[in-house]
Amino acid sequence: MITGDDMESKRIAAERAVEYIEDGMIVGLGTGSTAYWAIQKIGERMKEGLDIRAIATSNQSESLAKAIGISLVSFSDIKAVDVTIDGADEVDRQWNVIKGGGGALLREKIVAAASKQLIIIIDERKLVDRLGEFPLPVEIVQFGYEMTMHKLTELGCRPILREKDKKPFMTDNGNYIIDCEFGSIEKPVELHKEINMIPGVVDNGLFIHMADQVIVGFEDGSVKELRRMV
Amino acid sequence: MITGDDMESKRIAAERAVEYIEDGMIVGLGTGSTAYWAIQKIGERMKEGLDIRAIATSNQSESLAKAIGISLVSFSDIKAVDVTIDGADEVDRQWNVIKGGGGALLREKIVAAASKQLIIIIDERKLVDRLGEFPLPVEIVQFGYEMTMHKLTELGCRPILREKDKKPFMTDNGNYIIDCEFGSIEKPVELHKEINMIPGVVDNGLFIHMADQVIVGFEDGSVKELRRMV
Repeated sequence: MITGDDMESKRIAAERAVEYIEDGMIVGLGTGSTAYWAIQKIGERMKEGLDIRAIATSNQSESLAKAIGISLVSFSDIKAVDVTIDGADEVDRQWNVIKGGGGALLREKIVAAASKQLIIIIDERKLVDRLGEFPLPVEIVQFGYEMTMHKLTELGCRPILREKDKKPFMTDNGNYIIDCEFGSIEKPVELHKEINMIPGVVDNGLFIHMADQVIVGFEDGSVKELRRMV
Repeated sequence: MITGDDMESKRIAAERAVEYIEDGMIVGLGTGSTAYWAIQKIGERMKEGLDIRAIATSNQSESLAKAIGISLVSFSDIKAVDVTIDGADEVDRQWNVIKGGGGALLREKIVAAASKQLIIIIDERKLVDRLGEFPLPVEIVQFGYEMTMHKLTELGCRPILREKDKKPFMTDNGNYIIDCEFGSIEKPVELHKEINMIPGVVDNGLFIHMADQVIVGFEDGSVKELRRMV
């Protein structure tokens, strides 16, 4: 359940992240409730004169950006993204991240992989000692999805086909999402590879060594910025 | 260029492979010119009383199978495939295979991964000492394809977006195919993993340790059967 306080800590963290955006930058726009606040803040700064162009990680973020007048580009227009601001579902102490609760993990990962800097914004509840309490989303092609789900089971999880309105949920890329309940993920680096080697899997929600900075919002209104030491 | 002789050697090898099909089996139907002959031969044997059900690796094979009266199943009906017969573009001496010239690599790999036995049928020209003269097909999502192509370049190939009628060729899964000209692939096992770890890549045409049997047709009309020693 999202309470008012959670929303407030997300908003504060998102606004802090937007301070890293500078004139002339290409900005990657994340998807979901936290990214929503970042996009709103970018809109405010643009009214004050900030001049940027952006690339969206979902149809949802694209609509939002268009509505507040952010000019959008595609990968045919640019060589790299300067900074991407996105939310996450879990972040551990080794900077490994689970994303994809919102269903946009694949585009988010493509944009993140093209970004010079990835800033992850979360509220304090998402900071964990070990990943896996949040089910790991895996994007798979429709063809043979029953077989692919079976192969995911062999990695030690309970795989659940994500639904919307009693039909399989469909990503912006026309694929399905399997939410994999691991309970606890002991070796995220290895698991990430094992999942992606299964035929039928497009990608999974583990973002390994991709985040450059994590900004955490706390219920008391404070914000903590963590930077990768590597 | 496919000459009459090549077609004949493909046909002979395909017909030999069909001898491994028995009553009651679930059969995976490959895609392309060699698989075409296998499907035709299955049709003939069914007229003589063979009773099987099949799963197709492409819309093309599905239409062909329907036209000759093969009853088709999907993965929701079955737990495994007994034997899959499919062609290939290159096979090396370590049983590594390049597939995907026909554009169906992803479904072919999903069916192959679900098969108890995978029989690859080729004509002699496809048997090589080292893979890579044939461009390696890589299936990628449309979003950010320019960025994904750039990342493929970093693995040492020249990536070419496959086209059809002057538009990007689209797979049965709604994705693009990039034909990667490596010239020579020194480490196929490692390359297979590296490619699949790129965000945006769905899968690639390297089939590593998947073939159980390779049947080679020669121009003189002879056939050689190779079995994996593992």
